[in-house]
Amino acid sequence: MALYFPTVTTQIEQKINSLYFGENPPELYEPLRYLMQLGGKRIRPLLTILGYYTFQDDWERVVTPAVGVEVFHNFTLMHDDIMDNAPLRRGKVTVHEKWDANTAILSGDVMLVKAYELFADVESQYFKKVFTLFNQCATEVCEGQQKDMNFETQEEVSEADYLDMIRQKTSVLLGFALQTGAILAGADLENEILIRDFGIAMGLGFQIKDDFLDVYGETETFGKQVGGDIISNKKTFLLINAQKRAEGNLKIELEKWLSLTTFNPSEKVEIVTQIYNQLGIKEVTEQKIQSYFDKAFTCLEKMTLAPEKRILLTEFAQMIMQRQK
Amino acid sequence: MALYFPTVTTQIEQKINSLYFGENPPELYEPLRYLMQLGGKRIRPLLTILGYYTFQDDWERVVTPAVGVEVFHNFTLMHDDIMDNAPLRRGKVTVHEKWDANTAILSGDVMLVKAYELFADVESQYFKKVFTLFNQCATEVCEGQQKDMNFETQEEVSEADYLDMIRQKTSVLLGFALQTGAILAGADLENEILIRDFGIAMGLGFQIKDDFLDVYGETETFGKQVGGDIISNKKTFLLINAQKRAEGNLKIELEKWLSLTTFNPSEKVEIVTQIYNQLGIKEVTEQKIQSYFDKAFTCLEKMTLAPEKRILLTEFAQMIMQRQK
Repeated sequence: MALYFPTVTTQIEQKINSLYFGENPPELYEPLRYLMQLGGKRIRPLLTILGYYTFQDDWERVVTPAVGVEVFHNFTLMHDDIMDNAPLRRGKVTVHEKWDANTAILSGDVMLVKAYELFADVESQYFKKVFTLFNQCATEVCEGQQKDMNFETQEEVSEADYLDMIRQKTSVLLGFALQTGAILAGADLENEILIRDFGIAMGLGFQIKDDFLDVYGETETFGKQVGGDIISNKKTFLLINAQKRAEGNLKIELEKWLSLTTFNPSEKVEIVTQIYNQLGIKEVTEQKIQSYFDKAFTCLEKMTLAPEKRILLTEFAQMIMQRQK
Repeated sequence: MALYFPTVTTQIEQKINSLYFGENPPELYEPLRYLMQLGGKRIRPLLTILGYYTFQDDWERVVTPAVGVEVFHNFTLMHDDIMDNAPLRRGKVTVHEKWDANTAILSGDVMLVKAYELFADVESQYFKKVFTLFNQCATEVCEGQQKDMNFETQEEVSEADYLDMIRQKTSVLLGFALQTGAILAGADLENEILIRDFGIAMGLGFQIKDDFLDVYGETETFGKQVGGDIISNKKTFLLINAQKRAEGNLKIELEKWLSLTTFNPSEKVEIVTQIYNQLGIKEVTEQKIQSYFDKAFTCLEKMTLAPEKRILLTEFAQMIMQRQK
């Protein structure tokens, strides 16, 4: 029986909607339900299920811990949105804007506790291992977020520091999601580590693709404004590489646009994109994305897998690689 | 061998100082270490050790999970201080003032993860039980904090709602600390529940005593400004009961002082205290405190205990009951 992704996503949504997180006081639980029901791609719980299904067929057994990963992810979004002062999340008002920052802090806190609670649903023999890995993962996600915030006020960020940051902030959770699925399916250690590394490499490619789409995505398919990162001087893979490569007049021009406090946004996006084009940033970025997906595929090759499971993981990675939004 | 409290406290401090929480980025871990090293009475870890020592002598074995309780407590302080906009904690600048709110949010988040990590140090056979109880406890603490915040904008708060709030915000953690110690010592279920209830009752008495000392404590021994709760209109056990009991001119006078936006602080403290005196609030509060400690002592009586352990728990409760700061 092949795993049909839309069926899995439907089950994830149903589980999210059926979970009882708490009721009283409403200020604590309404923001939690609000954010959880804003949707999203549900990639992380899908990965836990996929990690399990790679080694065992009865994936319905791990929907609860899979949702735990999604609750954790949404906790980070709730707190990150306060820190980033973000007005919107998935096109809707953020929790700290709809309620206030205090509500978002505390509701986020209880979400982290609820994420732990959902992991309690795993088989006893695997519990402590998953728990330990989750603690490590959650720590790294916090470290990554702090580094990301630090970058905002740093003059220059090296590519290595940037890659380290996105690995912690985004990729380790994708790796953890897959690894947890594999552990719960009783995979051997070698395969467990390989599927985690597959997830981490895919996560790095995924995040750099995100940076890429901000500049080279099409507005209709990308779903958000193209150039948002350029407007806000966000230190993306593209900007970091442009700063590294630019020389002479191009460097002066780029730094000028980065330092302007008042400007025409679409003009800035257009000119900075032209600078990127002249520096070959599009190609550099595409190559980097490809190199991470190649790394992910290499992990898959090394795994001992049933042929139909290998096809499924490959298809999933290709889907992530080719995403236009 | 009798348990000597100062020895235990020293061991707790040593454990706190020796723990490696993390290093990089410093913005994440320095606030954590700063807050943990501000000191405090360390009552919660002491309770875990006491809960263990009640049933087993070798209490050194549970210092790590005991410190987990203290790390959790400090996580709540870090986030509560942001929400309460508090400038000082234990006489020192709060984390969100020394750094900023974002740092305090994220450093607090990682502290919660570290608290979970420290609980991993318990014997496997007890781990899942302690983990489940901790999740429940952490959830209640968040609920209590939200209720406390809600009270600020509520016109009137009932005594029942107030007691429910302090039970969740303060007492359940004291109960959890003792219960965890008892579980790790292999206590039977009846004793485990009784020692938890002993802690909860003591916690309620402890918190109301805190309200009491704000008005009737002596500045030198209490260590903070007497009357701070009166100045800020904090809905304490005393104010709630005064609002319930006041009639006629006394009611008008009390409500006037509660509604003034500009006033002489020491005058407000003096007059509101006089109103409390006229309403017999001092006695009502003392009786309530006593009733909770009576309840705590009743729990002790019901427990099956070695005589020297009973004496120790009794002495501890008396120490908490008689505290002047």
